Amino acid sequence: MRPSHRAPDELRSVSLERGASKYAEGSCAVRFGSTHVLCTASLEERVPGWLRGSGEGWVTAEYGMLPRATGTRTQREVSSGRPSGRTQEIQRLIGRSLRAVVDRKALGERQITVDCDVIQADGGTRTAAITGAWVALSDCIAWMKARNMVRDGVLRDHVAAVSCGIFRGAPILDLDYAEDSEAETDANFVMTGTRGIIEVQGTAERTPFSRDEFTALVDLAEAGIGQLVELQKLAVS
Amino acid sequence: MRPSHRAPDELRSVSLERGASKYAEGSCAVRFGSTHVLCTASLEERVPGWLRGSGEGWVTAEYGMLPRATGTRTQREVSSGRPSGRTQEIQRLIGRSLRAVVDRKALGERQITVDCDVIQADGGTRTAAITGAWVALSDCIAWMKARNMVRDGVLRDHVAAVSCGIFRGAPILDLDYAEDSEAETDANFVMTGTRGIIEVQGTAERTPFSRDEFTALVDLAEAGIGQLVELQKLAVS
Amino acid sequence: MRPSHRAPDELRSVSLERGASKYAEGSCAVRFGSTHVLCTASLEERVPGWLRGSGEGWVTAEYGMLPRATGTRTQREVSSGRPSGRTQEIQRLIGRSLRAVVDRKALGERQITVDCDVIQADGGTRTAAITGAWVALSDCIAWMKARNMVRDGVLRDHVAAVSCGIFRGAPILDLDYAEDSEAETDANFVMTGTRGIIEVQGTAERTPFSRDEFTALVDLAEAGIGQLVELQKLAVS
Amino acid sequence: MRPSHRAPDELRSVSLERGASKYAEGSCAVRFGSTHVLCTASLEERVPGWLRGSGEGWVTAEYGMLPRATGTRTQREVSSGRPSGRTQEIQRLIGRSLRAVVDRKALGERQITVDCDVIQADGGTRTAAITGAWVALSDCIAWMKARNMVRDGVLRDHVAAVSCGIFRGAPILDLDYAEDSEAETDANFVMTGTRGIIEVQGTAERTPFSRDEFTALVDLAEAGIGQLVELQKLAVS
Amino acid sequence: MRPSHRAPDELRSVSLERGASKYAEGSCAVRFGSTHVLCTASLEERVPGWLRGSGEGWVTAEYGMLPRATGTRTQREVSSGRPSGRTQEIQRLIGRSLRAVVDRKALGERQITVDCDVIQADGGTRTAAITGAWVALSDCIAWMKARNMVRDGVLRDHVAAVSCGIFRGAPILDLDYAEDSEAETDANFVMTGTRGIIEVQGTAERTPFSRDEFTALVDLAEAGIGQLVELQKLAVS
Amino acid sequence: MRPSHRAPDELRSVSLERGASKYAEGSCAVRFGSTHVLCTASLEERVPGWLRGSGEGWVTAEYGMLPRATGTRTQREVSSGRPSGRTQEIQRLIGRSLRAVVDRKALGERQITVDCDVIQADGGTRTAAITGAWVALSDCIAWMKARNMVRDGVLRDHVAAVSCGIFRGAPILDLDYAEDSEAETDANFVMTGTRGIIEVQGTAERTPFSRDEFTALVDLAEAGIGQLVELQKLAVS
Repeated sequence: MRPSHRAPDELRSVSLERGASKYAEGSCAVRFGSTHVLCTASLEERVPGWLRGSGEGWVTAEYGMLPRATGTRTQREVSSGRPSGRTQEIQRLIGRSLRAVVDRKALGERQITVDCDVIQADGGTRTAAITGAWVALSDCIAWMKARNMVRDGVLRDHVAAVSCGIFRGAPILDLDYAEDSEAETDANFVMTGTRGIIEVQGTAERTPFSRDEFTALVDLAEAGIGQLVELQKLAVS
Repeated sequence: MRPSHRAPDELRSVSLERGASKYAEGSCAVRFGSTHVLCTASLEERVPGWLRGSGEGWVTAEYGMLPRATGTRTQREVSSGRPSGRTQEIQRLIGRSLRAVVDRKALGERQITVDCDVIQADGGTRTAAITGAWVALSDCIAWMKARNMVRDGVLRDHVAAVSCGIFRGAPILDLDYAEDSEAETDANFVMTGTRGIIEVQGTAERTPFSRDEFTALVDLAEAGIGQLVELQKLAVS
Repeated sequence: MRPSHRAPDELRSVSLERGASKYAEGSCAVRFGSTHVLCTASLEERVPGWLRGSGEGWVTAEYGMLPRATGTRTQREVSSGRPSGRTQEIQRLIGRSLRAVVDRKALGERQITVDCDVIQADGGTRTAAITGAWVALSDCIAWMKARNMVRDGVLRDHVAAVSCGIFRGAPILDLDYAEDSEAETDANFVMTGTRGIIEVQGTAERTPFSRDEFTALVDLAEAGIGQLVELQKLAVS
Repeated sequence: MRPSHRAPDELRSVSLERGASKYAEGSCAVRFGSTHVLCTASLEERVPGWLRGSGEGWVTAEYGMLPRATGTRTQREVSSGRPSGRTQEIQRLIGRSLRAVVDRKALGERQITVDCDVIQADGGTRTAAITGAWVALSDCIAWMKARNMVRDGVLRDHVAAVSCGIFRGAPILDLDYAEDSEAETDANFVMTGTRGIIEVQGTAERTPFSRDEFTALVDLAEAGIGQLVELQKLAVS
Repeated sequence: MRPSHRAPDELRSVSLERGASKYAEGSCAVRFGSTHVLCTASLEERVPGWLRGSGEGWVTAEYGMLPRATGTRTQREVSSGRPSGRTQEIQRLIGRSLRAVVDRKALGERQITVDCDVIQADGGTRTAAITGAWVALSDCIAWMKARNMVRDGVLRDHVAAVSCGIFRGAPILDLDYAEDSEAETDANFVMTGTRGIIEVQGTAERTPFSRDEFTALVDLAEAGIGQLVELQKLAVS
Repeated sequence: MRPSHRAPDELRSVSLERGASKYAEGSCAVRFGSTHVLCTASLEERVPGWLRGSGEGWVTAEYGMLPRATGTRTQREVSSGRPSGRTQEIQRLIGRSLRAVVDRKALGERQITVDCDVIQADGGTRTAAITGAWVALSDCIAWMKARNMVRDGVLRDHVAAVSCGIFRGAPILDLDYAEDSEAETDANFVMTGTRGIIEVQGTAERTPFSRDEFTALVDLAEAGIGQLVELQKLAVS
């Protein structure tokens, strides 16, 4: 029995609200249960130095969390003078995930920065962020198309992400904070709309896991990501 | 005529939504028109070093802005390794304003940190932040009272803030970004429910202003803060 | 009765010594009683990036304090890796004050940096700094005129500053450290030679102040700044 | 055909040299082909704050790379003032991997820090580091046992790591730099002596990969780690 | 012929003015020609962690330079976030020099920090700083003795410093900035009142120097330091 | 009697191993007894800003130490965010020493960075580093000559360094850590192949030293450096 009373393969209630920002070229307020993330896509007509003159664009992501997004207040990262290792790991993951479905030639020499700011955290912030970031990115590209800045084909596929874990010996989908704290194994999966794998990260928190357990997690993830992609389709249609 | 089509002494549409955070002891989502600030009050059973053993508590504030809260994306402060001078100025102002109406002996040896995070910015973020922070603080103290941690009298009065300015020669109240960019003079006022002055900051952006102009700004501010205090009363009742 | 035995509207003994530095294009050693500040104006043939090609110049200020300028030694700011919020607030105030009386077109595409370093502190360092900085700036511009780099009219007016406060219930002028520590209200005023207001900053340290009290402080400031401007005229003549 | 002329499932020449440091309680110079890493285990009689009084110990890792370990010189991390995101990701991975096989109760309230410094890099530095770090850790625990500081059972199993990838369409084991630069998919596996999975990290560099491809990589990793564990057994015997 | 028209073995005009600070326990404004340094000695009733409980005290020094102490303005060190290598080298040198003549047992468990701030620089700031720092330290210890905090014998000897160099082939004493910029070799000497050597630092700026040349520099330094010690005696008597 | 059982004028066993790095244009693994330093010379086709267009090149050095190079683990410098004063002092010394024997015109507008990383430390790391750095630099210049990038005459002379000290009253050569900790005086000498002095640094650790003692140290250094230069000649021949 999960603390959240969900079935092992049941996602939390998910919502994807487009146009959450007055200014951003694309934006999405994503909720996975009590985890709320604001994703904004900002377009800039410049690329990092190593791409100048290449004709290719860049998509990158930044991740942040409000100090009281969590049960106890955490210090602002600016106070310690640098993003934590965890923050950097997550923002690199989001950026890689989005770039895997973008045709950077078709984007042209421009940069899109997707900011994912966690307003409230209850586990799974990185997977909610990736799922919402895709909607913000999709909106930003639609914004560009409406202005004839790009043609079709910049965005090649969907990208969504979900966590799985072994909880009291059983594989479960989309862990909230209470479940995550107690899970033996925690894995995050990023996949495309066609179920191509973009990123797999599995970590044994306490005891090593077996290949069979790992296979069960991949099965859960595939099904969960299928549902998230359907919700993305509804959101952008 | 103001770009916002408001009368010179007219506030923007203001809303104060309590309980905006699942976790914080007190919270308020405040909106002054398109300026949205999330204020959360976090209680900690410890005080800064210089107050240990004094029996007195402390109230402090931190201020942040999401990167795409503004028309063009701004870099996260963590990227430059430290809060900007502007950020520090604002968070010190919010902290001083709140402390001016708190009986720190009655609070006891505890710290309340009020985080004011700007989700969307359209001018007047610091005055919206102060006005909302008071509601979050008030809620936090109510939370403590409900647990018999404090008695009545911790919060001695209301605190609210508003900006005024000289725009195309005329004094106006509660400037939005478009008005603020063009104003000759910009002033922020922080006052109590009984119209005691806590903080006055007036700056000539281009040309010095006269005493008469300054007096007109104080008049506008008194009236505007009167309305904000009424809205606070509604919000916490 | 003030600890300094001065009348409520009496300035400390003020001196403004030009040419205090062998190297700087303009300089002034200013003393407000035991508060000593060395102000040097440095001319550079370059402007910040956002002004390049605009034909306009820039005036900026930096503020520092020697570690033992104060009664107990304070740590160097370089030890903590960044200027404190207070330092940044003060140097932005000095810069704004000076720019308010400079014709930046007439200055041409150059930058003048006025460094204000507190050698000894006894209250009112920011107001002494502004008053002395104007003399250093005036000297620097005279230096440029002597070399036919600029014409008349770069410096449009005087700028001077003074603090006022409510001390044991009575408004007083130009507080020293002992008075400042005990004052209920502390206000700084920056005005021009024609008594135009450039900056007003009033803060209730403990209890809110009334409009009448605030009016009394403005009256004191106007008179005090009048005397400081006369001393500046003597210094640069 | 691999640039290294190795068979798809062939490790590079691997050596594990114990006692490489005169001072460290445990040490190992590990070589995976031209990738050379010096691993030293340092014992300290103190634990991080959150473990004080718990009776449990801690194992952590730090990772560094000499500036000219690589084909072109890279700037020292101290020059930018902080470890890069990549460095932090790797050192957290090494630490988690080692802790997964340590009985922290049996270790007692002490900390072992394993430093992994890359002297020369030719791909796979993190997997070589984990494999060598285990030997250094094992030696350090033997050093403690020889001094009756701990009993048997502190180290519950082996830990070794290897990379796999899809290179020109085929799954290969233990990629060197030339192979890694060209691979479509890059995955790192950390497993125990009994083939329990501790960490899986798979990333599509350009195109998503399929479940079948992923399964092939896991197969290669299991075999490769089996060989590495045998070499560890030889090294510590 | 020296640019300064001094004889090869001639010091600049030197003055040592005690009591230059209103607050410091000891202070000295030292001038070596146009090089002006303010030295203040601050007493604190605490020692660095490694000396706690040892019964021994500590003497340390910090060094700074005002931005326009030099011919062209230099950036404040706080702007780059850390003291430069040069600053650290100099402050460690001053600290070592002073500690060499202090009986730290007799001082007791206290720390004296001598701040040496360069108000104006014309070469030889570190040697002027050491020579003046000794006077400030001596005054501070006299201040303690007057309060019966220490007995005689804390300060065992004088310490003074001077620079020498090979300038157009000839050895000269106490180089000013113009001479220093052109010198082939630059050496700094720190000696006691009894001509014991505390520190020797000789550097070939362009071409190596011979033992004979080095011997000539030591001769000059001995004579120059003899004169500086006499001036110190006058200053503190 | 020395703890190392060496004669007063006896060097430790010294080895200079060229080609220690697969990638660097020049490299040398130097050992002075148990002090091991890896020196790599990296060539870049760019110079610091102030040399651009001058036709002259630059040689610089960086110095680092592995955390467990020493008897007890030291924190990585990146953890404190900046190189220590000691590190900066040493790397500036190495850079100056190498530049003293390089014809920077003949080098052309290029930079050679010599990294000296201490793998194991037992006293005298800076002198070992300079001695090995010269070999790495010499190799790098030979690499350039083999590619017709430079002609003869870039490297004008040898450079080597050694430490001396007064230990239990007697002058000794090349102190190891145990000797250095106990020495009254510590001096480092950098000389050329023709015994020209490049740098002399002598410091009294506890009691001042006399001119006679200092002369004895210079004698020891000359002899020791003579032997080191012979070893360099063997290494590069």
